[in-house]
Amino acid sequence: MDVPPPTPLNPSTSHRYGGYLDAAAGVPLHAVAAEALAAAAEDGWADPGRLTGPGRRSAVLLDAARESVATTLQVRADEVHFTPSGTHAIHLAVLGTLLGRRRAGDTLVHSAVEHSAVFKAADWHESHGGTVRVVGVDEAGRVHQDEFIRAATEPGVAAAVLQAANHEVGTRQPLESIGAALRAAGVPLIVDASHELVHGQAPTSPVFTADARLWGGPAGVGVLVVRRGTRWRNPFPSDEAESGYSPGTVAVPAIVAAAAALLATRKEAAEAAPRLSRFIDDIRARVPALMDDAVVLGDPVRRLPHLVTFSCLYVDGEALLTELDRRGIAVSSGSSCTSDTLTPSHVLVAMGALTSGNVRVSLPPWTSEADIEYFLRVLPGAVAAVRAQLPQPINHPAPRPETNAASPAPMRSGLTTSDIVDSRGRRCPLPILDLARYLPQVAVGAEVTVLADDPAAASDIAAWCRMQGQLLLSSIEQPDGSSAYLVRRIR
Amino acid sequence: MDVPPPTPLNPSTSHRYGGYLDAAAGVPLHAVAAEALAAAAEDGWADPGRLTGPGRRSAVLLDAARESVATTLQVRADEVHFTPSGTHAIHLAVLGTLLGRRRAGDTLVHSAVEHSAVFKAADWHESHGGTVRVVGVDEAGRVHQDEFIRAATEPGVAAAVLQAANHEVGTRQPLESIGAALRAAGVPLIVDASHELVHGQAPTSPVFTADARLWGGPAGVGVLVVRRGTRWRNPFPSDEAESGYSPGTVAVPAIVAAAAALLATRKEAAEAAPRLSRFIDDIRARVPALMDDAVVLGDPVRRLPHLVTFSCLYVDGEALLTELDRRGIAVSSGSSCTSDTLTPSHVLVAMGALTSGNVRVSLPPWTSEADIEYFLRVLPGAVAAVRAQLPQPINHPAPRPETNAASPAPMRSGLTTSDIVDSRGRRCPLPILDLARYLPQVAVGAEVTVLADDPAAASDIAAWCRMQGQLLLSSIEQPDGSSAYLVRRIR
Repeated sequence: MDVPPPTPLNPSTSHRYGGYLDAAAGVPLHAVAAEALAAAAEDGWADPGRLTGPGRRSAVLLDAARESVATTLQVRADEVHFTPSGTHAIHLAVLGTLLGRRRAGDTLVHSAVEHSAVFKAADWHESHGGTVRVVGVDEAGRVHQDEFIRAATEPGVAAAVLQAANHEVGTRQPLESIGAALRAAGVPLIVDASHELVHGQAPTSPVFTADARLWGGPAGVGVLVVRRGTRWRNPFPSDEAESGYSPGTVAVPAIVAAAAALLATRKEAAEAAPRLSRFIDDIRARVPALMDDAVVLGDPVRRLPHLVTFSCLYVDGEALLTELDRRGIAVSSGSSCTSDTLTPSHVLVAMGALTSGNVRVSLPPWTSEADIEYFLRVLPGAVAAVRAQLPQPINHPAPRPETNAASPAPMRSGLTTSDIVDSRGRRCPLPILDLARYLPQVAVGAEVTVLADDPAAASDIAAWCRMQGQLLLSSIEQPDGSSAYLVRRIR
Repeated sequence: MDVPPPTPLNPSTSHRYGGYLDAAAGVPLHAVAAEALAAAAEDGWADPGRLTGPGRRSAVLLDAARESVATTLQVRADEVHFTPSGTHAIHLAVLGTLLGRRRAGDTLVHSAVEHSAVFKAADWHESHGGTVRVVGVDEAGRVHQDEFIRAATEPGVAAAVLQAANHEVGTRQPLESIGAALRAAGVPLIVDASHELVHGQAPTSPVFTADARLWGGPAGVGVLVVRRGTRWRNPFPSDEAESGYSPGTVAVPAIVAAAAALLATRKEAAEAAPRLSRFIDDIRARVPALMDDAVVLGDPVRRLPHLVTFSCLYVDGEALLTELDRRGIAVSSGSSCTSDTLTPSHVLVAMGALTSGNVRVSLPPWTSEADIEYFLRVLPGAVAAVRAQLPQPINHPAPRPETNAASPAPMRSGLTTSDIVDSRGRRCPLPILDLARYLPQVAVGAEVTVLADDPAAASDIAAWCRMQGQLLLSSIEQPDGSSAYLVRRIR
């Protein structure tokens, strides 16, 4: 495996992690956390549930860490439970609250832009007989507030989930008004506070979760807060550890380190926030001017201070990450949690945004102006390099599939007599590239049909037409599993 | 909270963890693991699933750790999955194999002396509609082999669970013959190898689990091995991390440290095994001579080299731990995993052994002769100190409850006309102490009834009668929830 050197290639940075602009995927272990980890490994290695001397010393360290985290989150210490990850905390929060509220009903309500862990928990709930309702978002990724409140306060709703801020585009959700409405209705609101907690306030909702990796704690520590008076039952096999909230003995040294990092990072992040927010404004303003066909996503104002996402047309996201990585820059693309699969980011799809060529920039507190300038300097070249590597687009109309002997699957009638661009077998971003190159060849007012079987094409062709002022008339699924997208040239 | 100093009080030890005789509850982080943890925190902090430079460096470290563990366990690297704890590995092993084998049936078979995590997983399986069959053990804690094979090969059995060696008494299970029979029958055997793996060989079963805390790795790392060709499906909400085996990003630095510790500790343990086994033989031989009414449990030969359990009559286990802790000795008592509750160790109950006054000694590799001599020197004094603190036993027969105005609940007829010792409201070990003090007052051939509501009394009175050569004639539950135990004096 080819591993780049740990030193960033970024020549203009002074920080050892300069060029690392992927804070929302986790930041390095904070220096105070590294110290705490080493010290607690000496004194907190034992199972805190034991009656021995080492066990009691572990328990004292664990209690102190819990008190510290509780103070920061403005909750009681006995409301804080440590889990093996932020993802596991979300699973426990969602399914445990549903189980505790079983008498109220079996419906879960959540927004369309939650972390994949919420979707996985919801899938599990459905496959165990429960009901799930997903509420959509606007173009900026902000949940439809009235619809969310209406859905969450219907009879039979056991719990609702809403993130504090979106992890891909940074848009903050209307937590206060939704929280107040749900409180009045007696429906527990579960808040995924992972990305908000570095910079912002802890939620006041009955249940919320966080992940220590985002604030410089070690991997292996999630936080689940269940406020007193909230019904919660462990949905998985229980255990004595963490009062039944954790599967097995907790990792005391890692928890101690996470608690130390939370304090230190929040302090640094609070000082850095105005600067980081200015950098983000800078990126939002300059990216569209630096490159053709780039669009910035998410709410420009009601957002996390340190995070922005933009999309570059006709660019493969993973190839762009690689190009940027070669230049010493680390960022994410699309729904990074699902980038191994072919499915596009569910967040970007829900927003109706272009999913291809997506770049998420999330700034750690130490980011300097030099880091931003360097990033903006190398970005256009990286995009150009990826675009230059693209396979040639389809330049001429393909024969109509019905008459094409090489096409084994018969096509459904319903195809118009328009020209056909056959992008089947071509992956994101090629279908929209094919469309973009072909459309100028048809007359204004005429139509072209794109045949594509890439799952991202459905949202990307729609988003591209909206961006370019063209008209997507219909999409019809074909017997071979592909879809036919009928696009009219408007200008 | 009163915390003793980290330095052991044991004056005769040279090792910094001398006096720590609780290896089966976890050992301190191994020195090589501490080094590996610090190094990997620098280079392995990022999510190994990311396409960035830091992500790839994490992935390289994770791959290397997986290869190393796989080599030790004599399995393929892609059969090794890291989980957040040994307990979580057991939950995943049991419920995932059951789910993967759903078409074969819904019955789980396991021994009566498994780790509590197996019982919790089995409870969960039952509460989700599954069937569970528990197979008993002999006096030494060894599972009834023929019965286990018969039960596990019946139609409708999806999976069977058997530990490699018992965690409380050290008895090794007949894995080879049971493994062969189940392999022939096509029923997957899941082996909890946690306690065997420090000293012994990895199982050859289709599924097995381990816990890094037992070999000097950090808390937060369990191992689940699923051999190729074994059907397994994640029973909980899935996630992309660890190919769907782990809920959330894995803790790469902790895994790297665990892999380093496994190699180092197994090497040290192999060298230490003959010495430790001699120490255990020593304890087994000398404890009964050092104190009245002490009995050593478990198989004397087919056992782990480093572990032994004995019970001291008329002693409260937790009080004895405290007395030993004051003398710089750390050990466990009973089913330490359930010591918070009032229920006695299910392992000791299944063996028909006395559950009160139980001490488990488990030796880390560095244990010296001086540690053992010191332990055996202070043990009798600690036991005497606990016995001296006991409340006075009941010295005279209680009035018959029917005529006792202070007893609110009416007693069921069926009580004999024997004398009655009313131990209701008195906790372990008082009911057997009351019986032991009272029995000499009745004539040989005559009977006494003990009334007790402590849950441990049922197994303890039976075990005491067996040990002392007296006869337990019957036990009858009473309307007030207590039980009446009718004991005949034989000698």
